[in-house]
Amino acid sequence: MRARPYATTSPTRLAAALLEVAARSGLESASVREVASQAGVSIGAVQHHFPTKDEMLAYSFQALADRVLTRLATVDPDIDPTRTLFAALSQLLPLDDQRGSEAHVMAAFAVRAATSPSLSSIRSSVLFTIRTGLATVLIRMGTPDPETRAALLVAAVNGLALDATSSPDLYPREYLTHALHTQIQLTLDTPN
Amino acid sequence: MRARPYATTSPTRLAAALLEVAARSGLESASVREVASQAGVSIGAVQHHFPTKDEMLAYSFQALADRVLTRLATVDPDIDPTRTLFAALSQLLPLDDQRGSEAHVMAAFAVRAATSPSLSSIRSSVLFTIRTGLATVLIRMGTPDPETRAALLVAAVNGLALDATSSPDLYPREYLTHALHTQIQLTLDTPN
Repeated sequence: MRARPYATTSPTRLAAALLEVAARSGLESASVREVASQAGVSIGAVQHHFPTKDEMLAYSFQALADRVLTRLATVDPDIDPTRTLFAALSQLLPLDDQRGSEAHVMAAFAVRAATSPSLSSIRSSVLFTIRTGLATVLIRMGTPDPETRAALLVAAVNGLALDATSSPDLYPREYLTHALHTQIQLTLDTPN
Repeated sequence: MRARPYATTSPTRLAAALLEVAARSGLESASVREVASQAGVSIGAVQHHFPTKDEMLAYSFQALADRVLTRLATVDPDIDPTRTLFAALSQLLPLDDQRGSEAHVMAAFAVRAATSPSLSSIRSSVLFTIRTGLATVLIRMGTPDPETRAALLVAAVNGLALDATSSPDLYPREYLTHALHTQIQLTLDTPN
């Protein structure tokens, strides 16, 4: 493919290319060379926008996080909190191909964050935002220890997403849906 | 460091070297070259034991999984199921440096399993073993829907481990302990 000059690409397009490479072949395959090839631009064009690989990864993780958080933010609060929580948290589970790719790449960035302060900072912000949003629903319900239960909802969903990503046969989609309903029920029903 | 001949290394030692590299710098850094350097052997010595990188990764993942599953299997069943579940599941949380490294590298292999059938097969077997062991405890307790609640215990712990690995400031060790206790309580206390 003919490489396009700098002007025809943008950080947003390069991030989209990185996320495609990572979803298909793993985040470890998302080198500057592979991203350039996926985007149909030169390596120099990628380096023009992202002088370091760390910057490319951080920008792409933030773009993915923004996309997912935007979907979460547009969930209509239902009169039934079970439905509100399900609608929000099911955005994070691999219940269709798009969410499957997102869950895989989100988990890959989460692991990479263990050795990257810039990725860690982005993931902490994402976790904090989601936990706070969930805790707000639980506080409104009078649920005991809402902060911990919100963190457990996030952890259960992140864990199910990771487990389903590595072992899809053990976690078919209907099973994930049933498991999420069960965790929400445990969260809302139990007295302290 | 002087490279040692083949005879002075073994797959077990090379796997230990790989796990050290992965814990320190991320699984993406665990190249044949880095593993050889960490083990103090030649690249040829690594390739002698592991003709492909996939084989090196699969052997190392199995070695790590065996170590963790052996610890889980030696948990004494307590008269109090809460204590039994806590003792088992706390082996999977980053509650000290060793479990922190293990949790990080286990999660990295889980993500890599999404693009590797051999790693996926190992992780599915690990998840199945842990889920079955937990479900046995829950069945003995008469807990409703024990299979799903066992899968949720595993997912919550895997999720907490991942979240704590990426964002240690948001998940201090006392908080992880409290969250695990809460998940066990939700699992055991709720009527269907």
